[in-house]
Order: sequence, then structure tokens, then C-alpha cells
Amino acid sequence: MLEAPVAEPEQRTTSQRIAALNRHDKPFHVVLAQQFDRDQIEHLCRLSEMIRAICGDRQGAQFLTTLLSHRRAMLYFIQPSTRTFLSFTAACQILGMPYNEVRNPQTSSEVKGETEEDTIQVLSNYFDLIIMRHPVEGFAERMALKLNQMRRALPIINGGSGKDQHPTQALLDIYTLYRCFTTRQNGERGVPRMREDIFAGKTIAFVGDLKRGRTVRSLVYLLCRYPGVRMQFIAPPELQIESDIIEYVDRYDVEYEFVDDLRHAIGDCDAVYMTRLQDEWDKAGESSRIDYGRYSLTEDMAPLFKPGLAIMHPLPRRHELDSRLDNLPQAKYWDQVRNGMWMRSALIADIFNVDTAIMDHYHSYYAY
Amino acid sequence: MLEAPVAEPEQRTTSQRIAALNRHDKPFHVVLAQQFDRDQIEHLCRLSEMIRAICGDRQGAQFLTTLLSHRRAMLYFIQPSTRTFLSFTAACQILGMPYNEVRNPQTSSEVKGETEEDTIQVLSNYFDLIIMRHPVEGFAERMALKLNQMRRALPIINGGSGKDQHPTQALLDIYTLYRCFTTRQNGERGVPRMREDIFAGKTIAFVGDLKRGRTVRSLVYLLCRYPGVRMQFIAPPELQIESDIIEYVDRYDVEYEFVDDLRHAIGDCDAVYMTRLQDEWDKAGESSRIDYGRYSLTEDMAPLFKPGLAIMHPLPRRHELDSRLDNLPQAKYWDQVRNGMWMRSALIADIFNVDTAIMDHYHSYYAY
Amino acid sequence: MLEAPVAEPEQRTTSQRIAALNRHDKPFHVVLAQQFDRDQIEHLCRLSEMIRAICGDRQGAQFLTTLLSHRRAMLYFIQPSTRTFLSFTAACQILGMPYNEVRNPQTSSEVKGETEEDTIQVLSNYFDLIIMRHPVEGFAERMALKLNQMRRALPIINGGSGKDQHPTQALLDIYTLYRCFTTRQNGERGVPRMREDIFAGKTIAFVGDLKRGRTVRSLVYLLCRYPGVRMQFIAPPELQIESDIIEYVDRYDVEYEFVDDLRHAIGDCDAVYMTRLQDEWDKAGESSRIDYGRYSLTEDMAPLFKPGLAIMHPLPRRHELDSRLDNLPQAKYWDQVRNGMWMRSALIADIFNVDTAIMDHYHSYYAY
Repeated sequence: MLEAPVAEPEQRTTSQRIAALNRHDKPFHVVLAQQFDRDQIEHLCRLSEMIRAICGDRQGAQFLTTLLSHRRAMLYFIQPSTRTFLSFTAACQILGMPYNEVRNPQTSSEVKGETEEDTIQVLSNYFDLIIMRHPVEGFAERMALKLNQMRRALPIINGGSGKDQHPTQALLDIYTLYRCFTTRQNGERGVPRMREDIFAGKTIAFVGDLKRGRTVRSLVYLLCRYPGVRMQFIAPPELQIESDIIEYVDRYDVEYEFVDDLRHAIGDCDAVYMTRLQDEWDKAGESSRIDYGRYSLTEDMAPLFKPGLAIMHPLPRRHELDSRLDNLPQAKYWDQVRNGMWMRSALIADIFNVDTAIMDHYHSYYAY
Repeated sequence: MLEAPVAEPEQRTTSQRIAALNRHDKPFHVVLAQQFDRDQIEHLCRLSEMIRAICGDRQGAQFLTTLLSHRRAMLYFIQPSTRTFLSFTAACQILGMPYNEVRNPQTSSEVKGETEEDTIQVLSNYFDLIIMRHPVEGFAERMALKLNQMRRALPIINGGSGKDQHPTQALLDIYTLYRCFTTRQNGERGVPRMREDIFAGKTIAFVGDLKRGRTVRSLVYLLCRYPGVRMQFIAPPELQIESDIIEYVDRYDVEYEFVDDLRHAIGDCDAVYMTRLQDEWDKAGESSRIDYGRYSLTEDMAPLFKPGLAIMHPLPRRHELDSRLDNLPQAKYWDQVRNGMWMRSALIADIFNVDTAIMDHYHSYYAY
Repeated sequence: MLEAPVAEPEQRTTSQRIAALNRHDKPFHVVLAQQFDRDQIEHLCRLSEMIRAICGDRQGAQFLTTLLSHRRAMLYFIQPSTRTFLSFTAACQILGMPYNEVRNPQTSSEVKGETEEDTIQVLSNYFDLIIMRHPVEGFAERMALKLNQMRRALPIINGGSGKDQHPTQALLDIYTLYRCFTTRQNGERGVPRMREDIFAGKTIAFVGDLKRGRTVRSLVYLLCRYPGVRMQFIAPPELQIESDIIEYVDRYDVEYEFVDDLRHAIGDCDAVYMTRLQDEWDKAGESSRIDYGRYSLTEDMAPLFKPGLAIMHPLPRRHELDSRLDNLPQAKYWDQVRNGMWMRSALIADIFNVDTAIMDHYHSYYAY
């Protein structure tokens, strides 16, 4: 009666993990940024564009709300988060999908001695999709495999787990870059393709606390799919990007360099991805000795910016991103927020196979 | 100007209490399990089956969401509960009924010196249905009678009150048993009838902390409506079922026995209703001296199970129900969870008289 | 790159503030009660009446839920409030507008060092309307002006800020008075006009803690638009209405008097607006020395009431309003609660310009 033991996620190779998450006879789980290849990324970016366009008028928006009104989502958000939470709920609302939330299972039966796996298995009976944010690394992945064994399997979207993965943030970031670097080709109608060489020769700088920022890790995974991209890692030595990411980048033959001062590098950047100091992970205030001013983007650097520079930040920000830059055309961080809502809508639509209905609608009414 | 004094619930007989809750000129309140007779139980079970079937495809599910989109529910949940809460919200969503929640009125005007009765009367103005979970025994009943006196009366569903009553749990439990013990008769189309003799000769065992489990009490009330049912109460002496329930069982001439070891009895059971030790009601850890292992269902008992045994548990569970039994065909406790969602949908549909619309739809499209 | 400095709200005149909130090229923000002139008040009161009528049957209610299903609201409620919160969510539900809530941004990125302005700017990307309740006076107004500078401006409704303003409460209060004092004229069809002289010769008494009750302040602003209204301020000297309100009343030539005992005045009142002692603002229990009994409405005063008296209270109440009066025809405080839901629906409908669709629907189906 016992199931064959399943290797723990950490003992498996990434491709074994991806294969287990994407079984053809099971729901599609979104757990790792590495799951997405170039075709899937393009599909999701273009689908996001279409949803954005369709939502632009009332008839279109109301069409979208009919797509998933027969499904229900659970947002299982154990780690505090307002913006990722609201981004997902907005995505559910755009598609007309009712949802509910579990924020603090301590108000629940766990106080009566139930395991968290049991709680999720029970609650899964009420829903068709679980969107999960959890402090424990690998927990979303473990639950995805666990749910695959139930009679009524259902998909999981990882909305951020531990210090490790934040795949939907990576998707919204690359969608933002797609919007910055793509122009419609001559004669092209509808939403432009995301060409394989979109980032060829482009310099994308990651700045700040690269060691502890899961958004940077996840975005690097996705960018490696595009030939010719160049990366700069601009960080204090103590907070430089970790070696597993560098190995990944090396495997994909991506050109990169380490830089330790933003001011010298900014003039060459096509995109600059700012991050805040994640000092909540400090054990003894060690990052308080770092001069983070060298990893801050300030108003006086504006004359150095390329006209087409994309300034990005996963937010929240502190002083590393000067609020006096907010109204520049190069500032794309508010756009990222809104792009996240469209991308998460696209992802959910894709999981439930209503992407073709969206594309058909778009091509009938909006592609001219 | 003063109302005639109303006898307190506890001074009234059960039939007086039921009559007050089911007045023809007032909304139908669901407060006590004893309110439901066999016809109503059958109606609700069959309605649940129909809703389940209709929800099986997108067109059907979308039809259901039109039924109560013009009504609004308040979930007034003062006692912590995630699963009952989400079961009710899913039911509301299935019927398209918007809802809102009040979890902790302390964040509210009560801190400004308002009584809880006033709070509920005020909030009732925004809603058409109150679903209430409250730690105080009899509170839902008192509020139902209070609301009946207002100009704009509205129905209450008791989602669990004190140690006493949990009528919707009892309804989902009996619905689960109906699904286990009913087969379609020769030539019968659509949803099968719930025959009066459905439990005749069946042995249903209640196991564990029977003294303090309100789900057992409520289910016993309902089972007594069915001639020929046999009950076993398998519990440590300190936690045996209370005398008022035995008096009730006696009144209905139900055959029962007390057993104090599960292993000897399990082979004869057609259904076994497991419960956890409710030690949160302990005053001085007295239940810690009990050997609860004798009231636990373990994997090594599986060879003793009848093939048609229904293993039930209101969940959450601890060790009294071995997780290695989870994938057995006899395990019905995950089904109970999902059945609760259908039953609560049926109950709400019934209260608002959209049950006939559901039956019509079912007979037009699904009964073949 | 810096914006021209904007004068702080408190340095501006009220008309300058109103002009800044009601710019033709920007969304309409509802921040101050003083923003509303007589025409707008009448429009909103009549629109509320129409929404109430349309909601009276299922087809009408379902029509309303299609009006704003393509928009989304954020309820940013930093100050605890259950009833105002639920009143707004019910209004959103009536219009079919999905919403989400931010109750405690401390669970959010603010712990990571973000300013509240940044938080709101970020979250505004997911929504089309912000409904805000905030403990800081003037905060809603500041955010409205801030949002006007963003590429994607969106409207704010002030759901109560500091001790100062509660404009939607004032609107529901005047709507309640309109319902009490208006009768359909001979031959008039549909919803009656709100005549300019509706309050001419009517005595409206404000009773209790007038110094610290923002609902009284806001309602006085609106009543001053109506010629011939008479006001009584019935309060202990320590809690009398503040001088800025008296100056406002003087400017509009409204007749008023100070009274210090309710019992002597009640027989002359056409409306009496009761308020509770707001002792949560006490610094050292100073209001505990006040004999609040003289500012309480009790059952023994009932013989003194005019038949058409409107007893109002913003609720929650304590002892200042005897619950034995609840079932009198003069008791309008439960009506106020429900009126708030209709008025807030009307306001939101008006902001999004679906008021004409409502009026058209009303005139087609309900005006006879």
C-alpha cells in the first residue's frame, strides 16, 4: 500500500525535477523558473499583451471574466506579501475566477495537530488551482508531487518560496524587457513575435544584493535562453551572485562580468535591474557595514542613461532607487507591477487551456 | 412597546424550538440537526448530487453561478475555522453568491461599546443570509429569533456553535453515507432515491471522543430517522457518548451497543466514523491518561475491513487515523470534504428556493 | 524633473482644495463633504433610490452586476472598521465590481522600508478605484493629488479620515433625511425631486459629543446648502461643536441655537441626530465626569416625539439611544445603515459614469 519512495527534490537534477512537474497526465505546475523554454516564454508574453489589449474596453474585459468563472483558486500565502497577493487576485478577477485565501493556517485546524500536508490536501477539495507562497524552500514542489498522487490532482503555482524561486516574478520581468526591446516589424500585425535575438548585444545589469535576491536568480535563468545577452553583476563582494548561478550562466555560454560600482557601468546598460539590501536575512547586522550608496541609482546619473535604458526594480525600494527618477521615460518599475498582473493572468489562462479562446478573440477584434 | 418575553431556548422542548425556527412567514433558519426529517434529507442529498453533476462541465457550472448572483451572504465566523469557512465560501461561489466575512468583531465597533446583537443587526442590513460560527452554544438560535423580529428578516445557517451542534456537518456526513450505500435501481434514471431502508441492518460505529464531538451528536440525530440502523459507540469510558444522545436513540428504538475496543468490532462495521481526541476541552490534562491507541484505525486492521466499509472522519485527524489508509477505496474522508461543499450549496439553494431551477436544469441536460 | 511644489492642503482655502480634487482632466475624488453642491446631492439621492428599486427584483439586480464587472476596487482600510468596510463591499458587489482589501500594510512591504505613498502607488496599478480609511487627517487628500500626477490616475473615495471628514456618511445621512421628508408630488412619476426647500422650517438637532464626531461635522456642511433649515446643537459645554463649524453655519445664514438638555428640545425636533460619547479620544478620562444621561434618548420621551420625527444615529450606540425605541416608526437608524449601501453604490456608479445607464434602466422598467 506504500507508494514507491520519491527522491527528494534536492537529490534530483533540475531536468528530473522539471519532468516530474510537467507530466502529460497531470496538471501543469509552475514551480521553477527553469521550467520555461523560449517558446513558452514567447507564448506567455504575447498572451499577456493580448489580455492587456482585450481588457482595454468594457466588452473585452467582460469577455475575459467569462473564461474561468467555473473554476476556483486558493491563495495559500503563508509568507506575508501584499503586492504579489494582490497581483494574483487581480489576475483571477480579470479571468472571472473566484478565489479564496489562506493566510494564517494557525487560525485553523493546525492548532488541533494536523500536518500542513493534510491541511492542503483537505482544502484542495474546494479548489481547482493552488497559488502558494511559502517560507520553506521546496515546499511548493513537494506539494505539487504530493497532489499528483491524489485522485483529484490540481495545479500549483509557486508565488515565491524561501530564498530560492519566484518564477512568476521572472516571467513578468522578462515580459517587461520584451515590451522595452521589441518593435513591430514592417507589415506585422497583432502582437509582435519575441525574436530569438531580442537580447543579442544588450547589456543587462543586476545591481545590489544579488546573493539574497530570489528575483535576480529567477530572471537570470530565463535570460540564458536568449543568445547574445550580456550580463553585469554589480554588487559588493559580500553580496555577489552565488556560484550556482554563475555555473548556470557559464553552461549557457553567456557573456558576463562582475562590476563593483554602478556609476562606471550605467552608461553601457540597456537595462538595469536594481534590488534593495535584503538585511532581514542578516544574522548579525553584517550588511550594515556595506556602503550601499555605490549600488544606488541617483538623479545625478540621469545624463549618463541611454535613451532606451530600462530601469527596473522588483520593489519595494528604499534609497537605492531615487524617487526623483520616477517620472522619467526610462523608469519601468511601475510598469513591472502592472505587467505582473497581465502575466499572471496569461499563466493562469494557459494552465486552464483558455489561451486559445483569448487568442481567437484577440485576432477577431483587436489585431489590425 | 416591549415584545412579549420569549422563553429561552433551553427552557423549550426541541419541537418548540424547531417550530420557532421554521415559521412559514419567516426565513428558514438552519440551526439544529434535528430540524431535518427524512424527506428534507433526501431532497438535500439528491440536490447535492445534481449540483455535483451540473458542475461537471463549464456550461453547467456557469448556469449555477447565475442563480444567486443577486444575493449576498455574510460569514460571521467568530470561532476559528478554515475548512468549514472555505467550504461555505466555495458553496457561495458555486451559486454565484457574493459574500463577505466578519472574523474578528474586535476590530470593529464592539470595542466602542456595542453589543454583539446590535453588531449583527446592523450588518444584517448589507446581506441576505448569515452563516454563523460562534463559540457560544445557542447563540445562532437566539440571533435567528431576534432577526425574525426585524422588519427585514433574513435566514441564519449555523456553521457550528459551541460544543453542541454542527448541522451542516451532519448533513454532509449523511450525504456521504447515502453515496456509499445507494445504488441505482433497475430502470431508474437520474439521481437515485434515498430509500427509507437505506441503513437497515447496517452497522455504523462511532469511535473516539464521543463525549465532546459535536459532529457525532448531530449525525446520530439524523441517522435515527432511518429504521433498522445499528450503532456502535466505541470509546473510552470517560469519553463515551452523553446520556441525552442515548435517550434520543432510545426514543427512536435504534439498536446500539457500547464497545471499548475498535479492533474487535471493525470487522462487522459498514461505516466507521473516527474522531480525534478533543483535548482542547480538557480542564487539567485528564485525557492524557487515556490509551487512545485502542480507538485508532491502523493499517494492520485493513485485512479485517468489509469491502464496502466506509471510513469517515470529520478531520482534522491526528494519529487515530493512519495516513497509510488514505489511498484505500474504503477511505471516504476526502470525499466528505468535497461532499460538504456540494451539500452546503444544496442547502443554500434550498433556502433561496432555487432548488427547482436546479432540478429542472438537471432533468433537462443530465438525467439519462 | 522636480514637480512644482504643491501647497499643503491645510494652507489652501476650501475652494482651492475642492478645485484640485475635481479637475476635469483627472478622476473625480471624493474626499470632503463640502465638495457636493445641491445638484450633486439630489442626483446621488435619486440615483440611490433607483438602485434600491432596481435591486428589488432578480433581473434588475443582475443588470446592476454587469455595470462594473470590468473594473476593480481596492479597499485600503488602515483604521479598523467593519460596518463602513462592509457597506462599501456590498456597494461594489451590487455593481458587480470585484475588489480587494488592504487592512494592515504591516504584513506587507512596509516592513521592508517602503513608504506608504510608494505602497499605494504600487498597489494602484492593480485597481481602478481606491476606497480609503485612514487615521491620518488629510492623507486621502494628499494621495488623491499624488495619484493625479501618475500616468495612470485613479479616483479615491475617502471612507473616513482622522477626526475630520467622513463624506460618504454625510451623504447617506442626507439621503435618509430626503427619504423622510420627501413625498411624491401630484402627478409626479418615478423618483421625486429633492426640492430646494425640503428642510425649510425643519428643526434638526445634533445631540451628544459634537466636538469629536466627524459625522456631525460632515452632515452640517451638506445641510447648509438648503435654505430655511434650523439646527440645534445639544451637547455638554465641553463637547459642543467647534467654532469652525459655527463659522461655516454663519456664512450660510443658517438659524441655530445651543441647547444643553435634550428633554426640553425633543418635542420641537423634526430630526434628532444622536451620537455616542467618543471617549477613545480622551486624554485623561475627562469625559467620564460628564452626565451623558442628559444627552440620551429614552423610551419615556416617546410621547413627546412628533409623529414624523426621524431618529438617527451613525452607530455604534451605547446607552444614549434606548434599544426599546428600536421598533418605533420614528427609528431610522437601521435605515441609515441600508441607505449607506445604496448611496455608496450610487457614488461609485457616478464616478464611473454608469449613472445614466442606471437611470435609463430605471425609467424603462420601474417608473410608473
